[in-house]
Amino acid sequence: MKAAVLMEKKQIVIKDVPTPQIAKDEVLIEVACIGVCGSDVHYYEHGRIGRYIVESPIILGHEVAGTVVATGDQVSKVKVGDRVAIEPGVTCGRCDYCKQGRYNLCPDVEFMATPPYDGAWAEYVKCREDFLFVLPDELTFEEGALLEPLSVGVHALLRADVKPYDKVLITGLGPIGQLAAAAGRLLGVHEIYGSDVVDFRRQLGKNQFFQDVCDPSNLADKAAEWTGGQGFDVIIESSGNDKAISSTPSLVKKGGKIVLIGLSSNSQVSLNTNEIVDGEIDLHGVFRYANTYPKTLTLLKHNRIDMDPFITHRYSLDHIQDALHTAIEQKDNSMKIMIYPKGC
Amino acid sequence: MKAAVLMEKKQIVIKDVPTPQIAKDEVLIEVACIGVCGSDVHYYEHGRIGRYIVESPIILGHEVAGTVVATGDQVSKVKVGDRVAIEPGVTCGRCDYCKQGRYNLCPDVEFMATPPYDGAWAEYVKCREDFLFVLPDELTFEEGALLEPLSVGVHALLRADVKPYDKVLITGLGPIGQLAAAAGRLLGVHEIYGSDVVDFRRQLGKNQFFQDVCDPSNLADKAAEWTGGQGFDVIIESSGNDKAISSTPSLVKKGGKIVLIGLSSNSQVSLNTNEIVDGEIDLHGVFRYANTYPKTLTLLKHNRIDMDPFITHRYSLDHIQDALHTAIEQKDNSMKIMIYPKGC
Amino acid sequence: MKAAVLMEKKQIVIKDVPTPQIAKDEVLIEVACIGVCGSDVHYYEHGRIGRYIVESPIILGHEVAGTVVATGDQVSKVKVGDRVAIEPGVTCGRCDYCKQGRYNLCPDVEFMATPPYDGAWAEYVKCREDFLFVLPDELTFEEGALLEPLSVGVHALLRADVKPYDKVLITGLGPIGQLAAAAGRLLGVHEIYGSDVVDFRRQLGKNQFFQDVCDPSNLADKAAEWTGGQGFDVIIESSGNDKAISSTPSLVKKGGKIVLIGLSSNSQVSLNTNEIVDGEIDLHGVFRYANTYPKTLTLLKHNRIDMDPFITHRYSLDHIQDALHTAIEQKDNSMKIMIYPKGC
Amino acid sequence: MKAAVLMEKKQIVIKDVPTPQIAKDEVLIEVACIGVCGSDVHYYEHGRIGRYIVESPIILGHEVAGTVVATGDQVSKVKVGDRVAIEPGVTCGRCDYCKQGRYNLCPDVEFMATPPYDGAWAEYVKCREDFLFVLPDELTFEEGALLEPLSVGVHALLRADVKPYDKVLITGLGPIGQLAAAAGRLLGVHEIYGSDVVDFRRQLGKNQFFQDVCDPSNLADKAAEWTGGQGFDVIIESSGNDKAISSTPSLVKKGGKIVLIGLSSNSQVSLNTNEIVDGEIDLHGVFRYANTYPKTLTLLKHNRIDMDPFITHRYSLDHIQDALHTAIEQKDNSMKIMIYPKGC
Repeated sequence: MKAAVLMEKKQIVIKDVPTPQIAKDEVLIEVACIGVCGSDVHYYEHGRIGRYIVESPIILGHEVAGTVVATGDQVSKVKVGDRVAIEPGVTCGRCDYCKQGRYNLCPDVEFMATPPYDGAWAEYVKCREDFLFVLPDELTFEEGALLEPLSVGVHALLRADVKPYDKVLITGLGPIGQLAAAAGRLLGVHEIYGSDVVDFRRQLGKNQFFQDVCDPSNLADKAAEWTGGQGFDVIIESSGNDKAISSTPSLVKKGGKIVLIGLSSNSQVSLNTNEIVDGEIDLHGVFRYANTYPKTLTLLKHNRIDMDPFITHRYSLDHIQDALHTAIEQKDNSMKIMIYPKGC
Repeated sequence: MKAAVLMEKKQIVIKDVPTPQIAKDEVLIEVACIGVCGSDVHYYEHGRIGRYIVESPIILGHEVAGTVVATGDQVSKVKVGDRVAIEPGVTCGRCDYCKQGRYNLCPDVEFMATPPYDGAWAEYVKCREDFLFVLPDELTFEEGALLEPLSVGVHALLRADVKPYDKVLITGLGPIGQLAAAAGRLLGVHEIYGSDVVDFRRQLGKNQFFQDVCDPSNLADKAAEWTGGQGFDVIIESSGNDKAISSTPSLVKKGGKIVLIGLSSNSQVSLNTNEIVDGEIDLHGVFRYANTYPKTLTLLKHNRIDMDPFITHRYSLDHIQDALHTAIEQKDNSMKIMIYPKGC
Repeated sequence: MKAAVLMEKKQIVIKDVPTPQIAKDEVLIEVACIGVCGSDVHYYEHGRIGRYIVESPIILGHEVAGTVVATGDQVSKVKVGDRVAIEPGVTCGRCDYCKQGRYNLCPDVEFMATPPYDGAWAEYVKCREDFLFVLPDELTFEEGALLEPLSVGVHALLRADVKPYDKVLITGLGPIGQLAAAAGRLLGVHEIYGSDVVDFRRQLGKNQFFQDVCDPSNLADKAAEWTGGQGFDVIIESSGNDKAISSTPSLVKKGGKIVLIGLSSNSQVSLNTNEIVDGEIDLHGVFRYANTYPKTLTLLKHNRIDMDPFITHRYSLDHIQDALHTAIEQKDNSMKIMIYPKGC
Repeated sequence: MKAAVLMEKKQIVIKDVPTPQIAKDEVLIEVACIGVCGSDVHYYEHGRIGRYIVESPIILGHEVAGTVVATGDQVSKVKVGDRVAIEPGVTCGRCDYCKQGRYNLCPDVEFMATPPYDGAWAEYVKCREDFLFVLPDELTFEEGALLEPLSVGVHALLRADVKPYDKVLITGLGPIGQLAAAAGRLLGVHEIYGSDVVDFRRQLGKNQFFQDVCDPSNLADKAAEWTGGQGFDVIIESSGNDKAISSTPSLVKKGGKIVLIGLSSNSQVSLNTNEIVDGEIDLHGVFRYANTYPKTLTLLKHNRIDMDPFITHRYSLDHIQDALHTAIEQKDNSMKIMIYPKGC
């Protein structure tokens, strides 16, 4: 099959690779579409993310939906022809974290496009059946692929036990921040506010699921206005920007919650921990997600919010390098970039 | 009555002041003993703590137990002669925080020894009846007074939902850290480890409720040894030391919990937020306590742990200045200092 | 002022009574409209509900909204002219339940229209300021009055920690069941199913917030169809009918939740407790509500669902007896009956 | 190997059966000791429990500890010679319940001694490695075997979120009730009260972990005395007796919790659901346990409570029939009966 293989930093090629062989409990999926994630771009540019290092050629991509084309002997959850979304981390099911329902912390997870595990920028990909979810007729393949970043938002909001009557701030309006707002809408939240330095992102947010948005330079004033000086019930930090992270304790209300999704480029970020103490604030880290796919599918099926505006660019697999360059160079007008192995 | 009045920074005098007048729902208590808290010492030395400023003479002290000597007409919970512990923050009972059970966040709380509200370094003090708790015969006045700092520990551990099978680290072994360990013991926890730079504190901790202790310079190694390299389930940071705060994310296990009690002397503390994200760590600020007095009384009654070693010095009210100097100058051999208005 | 006074069982008269005198922290409200609750009807018919007995004349009615006409000296939350909803139970704020945030269990609550406390079927009513909530311009007085039964639904759903992706069954489609569905919608839930023996109620439910409804005789089959044989995530039992209560364990999924609101007319109801054990089901009783008014106001403001169809009859205070007879005799075509002291 | 095989109702024989073959992820254990559970006795007497029917010969027994004698190729958690306790239900790790951490509700669990899965009344038994737990040196094999029923108690108490300051009532003082009290002690609870009709059980309870006990005929009075008329914070019902189940709502405090473990012999039990509603009581079903073994091992290691008195009878495997008859006929003087395949 044809796949986009990252040979080493900044060198990605389209080449023929063996189609994956499936085990008894696995399924082969023809990829319909697959998103470009910030982590894919980061591996392409830097050859590593933290402790994960690209040491041998790897296929990237993990936001994927497609059609079942073959199933192992023991597979019963899906059948050939089913349109499916793929949850891209296959966990062991046997460690303490898995058994406690926090399988996103499984130390033995095999997560697509995280070295040394291949991802799905390819014509076909395989997956263990329990991580496949049949798409209802109402949902497009694109929505199936977007389930992955959307899951991050759903997980973050559930970690904060967000309620529909909460006032929520999302800092950073890239794909994760935008989809966290979509997740908020799906979870019934009305008052979602956002901040980002990029005008295009603010406009998109305003047009989509944010009640209002602002530039971070105005955030303190705007927050006071939006919350009547009380602070937000929940803040979702998705930018990874140090200033944004540092600003959260002063923007949340007493007893409120901060969720950190964004990874900083620095190992040390300044925080006013006294504000966290004085206000009895809860701060929650978020790493990927667990148990979000079936919930999010149900929500999307019943609440047909428009996910289309999030996809700003579409490329065939052959033009993956253009896709990556768009992601890197056009932050001012791109959001989610979608790849179509069969062409688009 | 006789009281110790802080006239201004570093000037405290014993003088006659009017005995408090009680309202219909209030109670007058003859003070048996009352602890010196770090906040009292801080007001004495600096005349302020953050936004709380000593602008007029104030009576300090808020860790207090005594005997009921008069009751308002509507009082039914206690009667003259009862030995009582006093929860020193009287809340409004009507704001959103009070109604939600988080009354420690009540913006209208009248907290003893926090300007402009007088405390209890005096012969008598008054309190609204619902913040009084009758001491069982088994408990001493000293234990009644220690209920206050002990409550901070109980609240911190309950905020972390600590379980008896958890491995807990407490950083900072001053009175709050020591009593957090006592709280852990009362809540059934066995594996409590501690770190502090002061040898006296480590020894006391080791003799009391810590399984093991170390100097912070060895903490990373010791933590690996104590937890088999997994990290702690729960960390209680009570030192306020920036390095201690900064060290917590690397010492807690994935999915673990950090509780911050200690206030830093700096408004910005460096934290590795990426570790919080990667490990899906929960970090909880703790401000005072709520609903801890009846619980802690019950625990102390049934589990007669020895609280006596925590009280290293005793002074009469007349020698309050000596008590304060001991607190300031003898950090190497003092823990809780207890004041006895009637002499000791 | 004019008020409807229940002199004894089945004898209600319109008479002049003293206008309530307000204390420093109380507010006098001119009643705009006030609903007839099942409990009002029950007191009228039977002179008692369980341990609450009408032993002297009482004014009924506790689902009320109106306009502030006078305020006590200490009142700061509302001002004359404000349109307000009244939360009708004034709690002590000082008992263990109040301090823990479960003030609906306060043993000293003074709840309107529960003997011996007067309600609001009158021109004026007074209330302590902290139980008043200013209506946003978007909300009508009728919505303000409906906040009371709607709060029961919100509280029930929050007790079950309902999620927008849950499948919910509501048994009993009287006002409480209907408004529990409205509460579900406000909380973002899509799949709400219902059962009732009365066709009118089913039709109203179907037109409003139920995905589908059925007669209880078909419920087992319909439940299997609606849930794919899995059972519901959450069941809200609002009928008080013994058969309905008994049916819940077999209709909920393993690990699911049952919430009981409805009071049975019998002191013993048959339950298959083995199903509760085998399926690790949670069953939660619900008594009134706590902290629901501000949340529900926020939800109604942002999600302008149509509450009008729930109000099937309107009467002036002078015709209160007609209103009660309608409630008693026309169960087949009445839902919420609203009383207007100033005429309608 | 030698095993006790239940051929059909009331017919159990010692016979040679093939020693289990282990897969790559499985472990063969030489059984050291294994308890007789009420369910084993029930299968022996009645040939079924509810929907589980003995349709072909089966080996019973699932409370087991022993020594590892062989390991599959992929096994890394244990090694030959390790003393281990066995968690007897092997789950799929892939269904929704498993992924959410409630693996005790896994529909595909293979639970020892539940038809059609063999148990461990035999010389050897096999188990998947992730359900084995190495016994610390401090723990005996008997304690390892008792971990199974003890786990039920731990799970029940955790389901109720029991706190060390709670007042707990346990109804039914057979092995499950006794070990629930042991679990309470391990979790730090002091005030545990019990009721049972059998004097022997009450005495054993009083000598072990109950603060006080009584006959159910006196329970209402005793409960009032023990709780000062307030009711218990938590009730654990382990008897399965209908009267005991029915009594729980009147014995628990407002806002309290009832946990049902005991299975009734009737499909319908009378409950005063109005008391559940009025008191906002939570009632939780409990089915087996999840994630309890490592926690309970840790607790037992640190708190060397005396488990020995619970074991009243010991038999070799050859005398399994005597063991069963003792269980059936000597309820007045037997508690846990332990079987030793190698003789005792």
